[in-house]
Amino acid sequence: MKKEECPLCNPCDELVVAKTEKFRIIKVPDVNFPGYFRLIWNKHVKEMSDLSVQDRHSLMDALCSIEEIMIEELKPTKINLAEFGTMVPHLHWHLIARYEDDPNFPDSYWSAKKRTTDKAILADREKAAQKCAIRIANLFS
Amino acid sequence: MKKEECPLCNPCDELVVAKTEKFRIIKVPDVNFPGYFRLIWNKHVKEMSDLSVQDRHSLMDALCSIEEIMIEELKPTKINLAEFGTMVPHLHWHLIARYEDDPNFPDSYWSAKKRTTDKAILADREKAAQKCAIRIANLFS
Repeated sequence: MKKEECPLCNPCDELVVAKTEKFRIIKVPDVNFPGYFRLIWNKHVKEMSDLSVQDRHSLMDALCSIEEIMIEELKPTKINLAEFGTMVPHLHWHLIARYEDDPNFPDSYWSAKKRTTDKAILADREKAAQKCAIRIANLFS
Repeated sequence: MKKEECPLCNPCDELVVAKTEKFRIIKVPDVNFPGYFRLIWNKHVKEMSDLSVQDRHSLMDALCSIEEIMIEELKPTKINLAEFGTMVPHLHWHLIARYEDDPNFPDSYWSAKKRTTDKAILADREKAAQKCAIRIANLFS
C-alpha cells in the first residue's frame, strides 16, 4: 500500500488524544467497547521490526503507560493488545478494555458477538474512557 | 485464575522451541496457519504492565527477533502480534504469519474463516515454519 492510498497516512475524522513526534493515540468510536484506544505510528512502516530498537522500546513504554491508565480508570477484566495490519499495513496497535459482559468475551474483539452489554454500564465506561483520554493527553503533552 | 488451575502454568503437550529464564516459545499446531508461534511468560502474571520496564523491553526484543526470523523464512504478507488473555489470563503473545490466501485474510485469525488454502502451499509453509523453529531455538540457546 502506497502512502497516498493509506488511510492512516491520510486520516479523516480521528479523535486524536495525544500526538508525539513518533506516534499518535486516538480514541476509537465503538459504542460496545468504550475503552478502545489505538496507537498509530506516524511514519508509514509495516512491521514492529521495521523500527529501531529504541523506537520499539519507546512504543512498548507508551503501550504500557496507556494500559496502566486504562486499568486504573476502566477497571477491565483484561486489556487486549494487538498489532495486525492485514487490512491497513501501516503500523498501529489496538488497546481494548475487555469485560466479562462485553459482546464477545472471552473470545476476541474480532470474533462473533454473542451478547449485548447493559446500556447504563456502557455509559459509565464511556465516562471512564473519557477520563482515560484526558490522562493520556496529559501524559504525552 | 489460580496458578493451580492455569493451563500455561501446568502445560501439557507443548512443542517448546526455546526456553529462557523469563519465557518460553512454543510452535502452535494449526494446520491452516503453519507460521504460528506463541511466547509464554514463565511467571503467572496477567498484564504487560505487570512486568518491570526491563522485562517489557526484553519481551519486545524477543518478539521482534522472532518476527524477523518469521519474515525471512515464511515471507508472509504481514505478521500479527497479539496479547489477549481473556481465555487464559497468564501473559502470552501470539505471533502469526498471515497470507492473502490464508483462511481469514484480511480479517483476524480469530474471525470467521472464508477460504481454504492450497495443501501444497501449506506444506511448503510448514517446512519454512520448522526452519523458523530451529533458528528461534538457536537464537535463545
